[in-house]
Amino acid sequence: MNRAIIAICLGLSTAYLTEVFGADEGALLGFNPDSAAAEKRLEVRFDQELNRDNLRNWMQRLTAHPHHLGSSYDKENAEFIAAQFRSWGYETRIEQFSVLFPTPKIRLLEMTAPEQYSATLKEPPIKGDSTSGLTAEQLPTYNAYAKDGDVSGQLVYANFGTPDDYEVLAENGIDVAGKIVITRYGGCWRGIKPKVAAEHGAIGCLIYSDPHEDGYFEGDVYPEGSWRNENAAQRGSVCDLPLYPGDPLTPGIGATADAQRLSIKDAPSLAKIPVLPISYADATPLLKAMRGPVAPEAWRGALPLTYHIGPGPATVHLKLECDWKQTLLYDVIARLTGDERPDEWVIRGNHHDAWVCGAEDPVSGTVALMEEARSIGKLAAQGWKPKRTIVYTVWDGEEPGLLGSTEWVETHAEELRRKAVAYVNSDTNDRGFLNAEGSHTLERLLNQVARDVQDPETRKTVAQRLRARKLIKATPGERNEISQRADIRIGALGSGSDYTPFLQHLGIPCLNIGYGGEEGGGCYHSIYDSFDHYTRFGDPDFQYGLVLARTCGRAMLRLADADMLPYEYSNFADTIGKYVQELTKLTDDMRAGTAETNGWISDKLLADVADPKLVYITPAAKPPVPYLNFAPLQNALASLQKSAADFERARRSAESRDKATLSKAKQAELDQALLQVELKLTGQGLPRRPWYRHVIYAPGFYTGYGVKTLPGIREAIEQRNWPEASEQIQVAAETLQSYSLGLDHCRELLEAH
Amino acid sequence: MNRAIIAICLGLSTAYLTEVFGADEGALLGFNPDSAAAEKRLEVRFDQELNRDNLRNWMQRLTAHPHHLGSSYDKENAEFIAAQFRSWGYETRIEQFSVLFPTPKIRLLEMTAPEQYSATLKEPPIKGDSTSGLTAEQLPTYNAYAKDGDVSGQLVYANFGTPDDYEVLAENGIDVAGKIVITRYGGCWRGIKPKVAAEHGAIGCLIYSDPHEDGYFEGDVYPEGSWRNENAAQRGSVCDLPLYPGDPLTPGIGATADAQRLSIKDAPSLAKIPVLPISYADATPLLKAMRGPVAPEAWRGALPLTYHIGPGPATVHLKLECDWKQTLLYDVIARLTGDERPDEWVIRGNHHDAWVCGAEDPVSGTVALMEEARSIGKLAAQGWKPKRTIVYTVWDGEEPGLLGSTEWVETHAEELRRKAVAYVNSDTNDRGFLNAEGSHTLERLLNQVARDVQDPETRKTVAQRLRARKLIKATPGERNEISQRADIRIGALGSGSDYTPFLQHLGIPCLNIGYGGEEGGGCYHSIYDSFDHYTRFGDPDFQYGLVLARTCGRAMLRLADADMLPYEYSNFADTIGKYVQELTKLTDDMRAGTAETNGWISDKLLADVADPKLVYITPAAKPPVPYLNFAPLQNALASLQKSAADFERARRSAESRDKATLSKAKQAELDQALLQVELKLTGQGLPRRPWYRHVIYAPGFYTGYGVKTLPGIREAIEQRNWPEASEQIQVAAETLQSYSLGLDHCRELLEAH
Repeated sequence: MNRAIIAICLGLSTAYLTEVFGADEGALLGFNPDSAAAEKRLEVRFDQELNRDNLRNWMQRLTAHPHHLGSSYDKENAEFIAAQFRSWGYETRIEQFSVLFPTPKIRLLEMTAPEQYSATLKEPPIKGDSTSGLTAEQLPTYNAYAKDGDVSGQLVYANFGTPDDYEVLAENGIDVAGKIVITRYGGCWRGIKPKVAAEHGAIGCLIYSDPHEDGYFEGDVYPEGSWRNENAAQRGSVCDLPLYPGDPLTPGIGATADAQRLSIKDAPSLAKIPVLPISYADATPLLKAMRGPVAPEAWRGALPLTYHIGPGPATVHLKLECDWKQTLLYDVIARLTGDERPDEWVIRGNHHDAWVCGAEDPVSGTVALMEEARSIGKLAAQGWKPKRTIVYTVWDGEEPGLLGSTEWVETHAEELRRKAVAYVNSDTNDRGFLNAEGSHTLERLLNQVARDVQDPETRKTVAQRLRARKLIKATPGERNEISQRADIRIGALGSGSDYTPFLQHLGIPCLNIGYGGEEGGGCYHSIYDSFDHYTRFGDPDFQYGLVLARTCGRAMLRLADADMLPYEYSNFADTIGKYVQELTKLTDDMRAGTAETNGWISDKLLADVADPKLVYITPAAKPPVPYLNFAPLQNALASLQKSAADFERARRSAESRDKATLSKAKQAELDQALLQVELKLTGQGLPRRPWYRHVIYAPGFYTGYGVKTLPGIREAIEQRNWPEASEQIQVAAETLQSYSLGLDHCRELLEAH
Repeated sequence: MNRAIIAICLGLSTAYLTEVFGADEGALLGFNPDSAAAEKRLEVRFDQELNRDNLRNWMQRLTAHPHHLGSSYDKENAEFIAAQFRSWGYETRIEQFSVLFPTPKIRLLEMTAPEQYSATLKEPPIKGDSTSGLTAEQLPTYNAYAKDGDVSGQLVYANFGTPDDYEVLAENGIDVAGKIVITRYGGCWRGIKPKVAAEHGAIGCLIYSDPHEDGYFEGDVYPEGSWRNENAAQRGSVCDLPLYPGDPLTPGIGATADAQRLSIKDAPSLAKIPVLPISYADATPLLKAMRGPVAPEAWRGALPLTYHIGPGPATVHLKLECDWKQTLLYDVIARLTGDERPDEWVIRGNHHDAWVCGAEDPVSGTVALMEEARSIGKLAAQGWKPKRTIVYTVWDGEEPGLLGSTEWVETHAEELRRKAVAYVNSDTNDRGFLNAEGSHTLERLLNQVARDVQDPETRKTVAQRLRARKLIKATPGERNEISQRADIRIGALGSGSDYTPFLQHLGIPCLNIGYGGEEGGGCYHSIYDSFDHYTRFGDPDFQYGLVLARTCGRAMLRLADADMLPYEYSNFADTIGKYVQELTKLTDDMRAGTAETNGWISDKLLADVADPKLVYITPAAKPPVPYLNFAPLQNALASLQKSAADFERARRSAESRDKATLSKAKQAELDQALLQVELKLTGQGLPRRPWYRHVIYAPGFYTGYGVKTLPGIREAIEQRNWPEASEQIQVAAETLQSYSLGLDHCRELLEAH
């Protein structure tokens, strides 16, 4: 009886049944019924050991002082964490790398016309926030890797500072060349803002936190509520992360003591202009002093003023000078060696460095990881042994640009490509809903885990609660899939945390897991991201810290213990099918849109509609969008769908048997073959940014953290580079054909019992 | 050759050709080629006489002092306008009515907890705005027809104060019974806010102007820019206009000296609770002092604070006492008697009263009407005579509730139902785009006029410019129709100006015409709606005043001179077809939406998704939405479509002949028959509000100015009153069947030459 019929008989919704029975009605991916039962018993023991008090105590300890990269407390924290891991039975060491990490010597921002204003650039201590007063130890508000400079110019307001925003400026007849742009946080990753500003000739860039995205518009501000107050500013890196992350001087290689380094002037990922983040208290006088066209409605924030584009008359003087020093970073690497397949590594990570005290970012995730590791250590101490090696990593230098993880991955790349079978990342964590993204071969695993973890606030599983939310927030067109599809779709990974080098440089399947959405937020990268803030707003009783440990811990245990690697291919093929559809639709929509807009331009409609009392520059017509040959990709997709279906059929047959049908040696051989299939998704790298080698997933060149799937093709289309789009269709098609062949080979191994 | 093929041959867009050739390639609706040519020559002479200086001079004169209903300058203006009409050769008189018009004696608003604040309730004079200082003559900020009272209570923020907003309050566990609601302007007509608040048990209502809708968010504030500054408040009536407009004491009958009047306590259209409009300066301390849940994102305005729903702790004391006196109003009625069909009246109107000085509202429209009338008077003085009688009306008491027009229409209802063939209204007018709404039998006429009037800012016609704007703002799905349909669609009329009694009480075809969209706005119903404001921002050189005169003047001349009344039925039938589709879709969408939401409620999804730390009350499930029998309406629509097509075929045949084929007597008989067909659209009135008798158009009972088409059916569906919906389907079906029969009769008259 299919699920819909059962639903009708019992008067229940199919979504409910999907939750109850799961996609595979109780089976555990990679396990047979016997080994699955043992695994479930193990997970009960794992859960029982978890203790919330540890999370609170460790957070209090780790956030007692600012602990940014290069600070003494950063190193102390690494040593504290390493000592804990050792005490839990892990082989633990600290790996050091030497990275370029500029910190400010001079930061000056003043408005010189039409009136004088000196920006305070200061976050004041707050009573009741005990670490906010540790001023001497705090890094000041700045954007790391911004260029040193001393520039003066009129301000232009460029909204979020995306390429589209500059098209609007051009239509208003405004050129930013020689000007300083002021942008607001949001809309894209911060590093995109100075990158695009510099591409358009701007000589400086300010990034302020508008209360619409991050302040009183969202909720009460700190300390009354959780949200960003008028004096808080968002620190953060403005390195060109979509070009390559990690140490700017050692792209592609580990920043070991003896590594060959670029000179600073040749490092292509450094920002091209001076950049400074400012609070909305500091931004207000500047924005108030601007004139020129009123900003389009979508550009207006929540400050009590009329947003004007400029240029000027507000004119500012921006001076920035940093100490461009080499700094040591401290990665904690802890290992629990596998019993049966020690050369297969299941890696788990979260960073430990923060911009200031970082209770939410990253310590909320760090302490959950630690408690999870402690409980697993306890299981090992009691005699259990993982099949595969478990590696816990706690990264340093994530904030300035994923330095600790990237340098470690680059240093050990060859070994990791042979041994690493999965990387599970976490970062900030708060009260709320499961938020998981990752490789779609791990989508089923994640869903199975989410169906086994209870939400602490409701009597539902975290999967049920997430599905309910997606259903309620969906458009009517999306709802059917959400309630009927066995697994909840997970998003693809762009960038923004330490999974990037594993996934996008090496091709190792990754998950990134966190909870949130009910916590308020608002302290991101400010001095107010503190223990006091977190225990009032983030996850006061650390219930969601425990839930994160239960979620990631289960994923780790299943990855470590499964008879065969719990990769799943029907969801992967289904997802690739969606991406291919998106690309053909994107091209068709661009073709129709371009034709339509060109018609308006030639008919002068745009000029006719513009208010003649304002400047309006009609954009130039664009060349028509050609039809692309998507057939190679579509044929590859068809192969993939067939290979995936065949493999899954073979797997179901194998996993339905009570006992494993393959010998241990054959299982290990199959694991290796499966890993090799995954690695086929990495190739020569993306055009103009070869560090990014994954054919399916990359952070967007002009979005930053935001993912672009099938990035080679998608970005070529978006940039209207048709020859490159065709080449990249070929690359992706060959990649997927090769993947399918590999999968067929795995199926043969599986069937050859 | 069809238009699409011509377009391809010439490489032009079909939209362009539609503009060039028009829907009917040069023909004038209601004229044959000969009479059309004469009409065009007449219009050239009409245009030549128009002079912008008159508009400026009259505006300066009419707005020199506050001239609200009951003020001495209001009467002086009426007398001045009447004298002008007399001097242009019109038989002119002033008709007086005696209406209830309360003006404030006591207005008090103070916050008593958690701190003390006394609202200023004052709009200060501004240097450079010469009439803003005439404080003694200005009506204070208030909402006319609010109930006297002295109430104290906690505040609840209810967003726009629509019924939907109260559903959100209920989900947050908030009851407004015994509370004072604070709402912001926007989202519905202001009178709806206290009506719905009172229905939910609130004891008072504040309405403030949020800068998001009407202030610095939109643009620079007065006097630097045009937009509402922090001290300006929006006066306005809060009578229950959707119940009936006009004098609250004389519903359905003229408020003549000897009319039988209700007592004030029995007048059902008066607001049920005290209401006061306030500025955002006065609203800010109140909103700042509120706590309780943070308002949903869509509820938040542009004030620099976190919007909370309450209740309280902000507690206010609101006291209101008015002088509920009878006041005389002065309607100016000017007549140019028709030569051939004097008993057919083509009526034109605009009001002259204002809340304060009212340069934009209404004098911008009043002076255009006057100049138009002067030029027509000049044509008459030079020997031209209209076929039909032209009646210019300049209304008093529009602002408090369409008093002057409603009382006049009610007084002369019987005569108007026999004689009035059309009413053309205008009100405020500014720089920008044509904005026309009306009866769809006049859609073609309006389109033909719009294709003959040049936009002063571009070299295009006002029709071309409007179509271009609609095209650019449309969704992709709407664009094809916009570029292909011969005529631009006009909106249906709800309420908000003096066409209401003509259209919705009597059934006379109406147009409401104005220009705007580039002027800024922001002075609506404040003391800053002044000559100084208008000549800086509204239409500084009165070019759009002239364009309004050209537009309405053409409509008047064509309505007065056409061989047969220029009603057109294919657009009307097409529009009714759209409405019928909308209603079936509305019901289907409600059925699906109700089923889905009920499913969520029974599955407890909504509760699962809510943040358990906040209050969330799951709404009760609603009864399923039944299938309604729309067949009678669909059959009536089919009849209408056939009758309309047949009539239009006959008309084209008749109008294509060089000479009129009907005798003058037959033409007059046809006119009468056509008018009778239009009048068939009015019936017994809407349920619970019989004053509104039109079956196709009404202001919404819960939207106010916003129109509801096929209102009997639509509102019954929206209120989930299924038996009434079925009854109203029957009413509308019978109405349209009768309309079709009438139209068939007209066709027979037309063909019987």
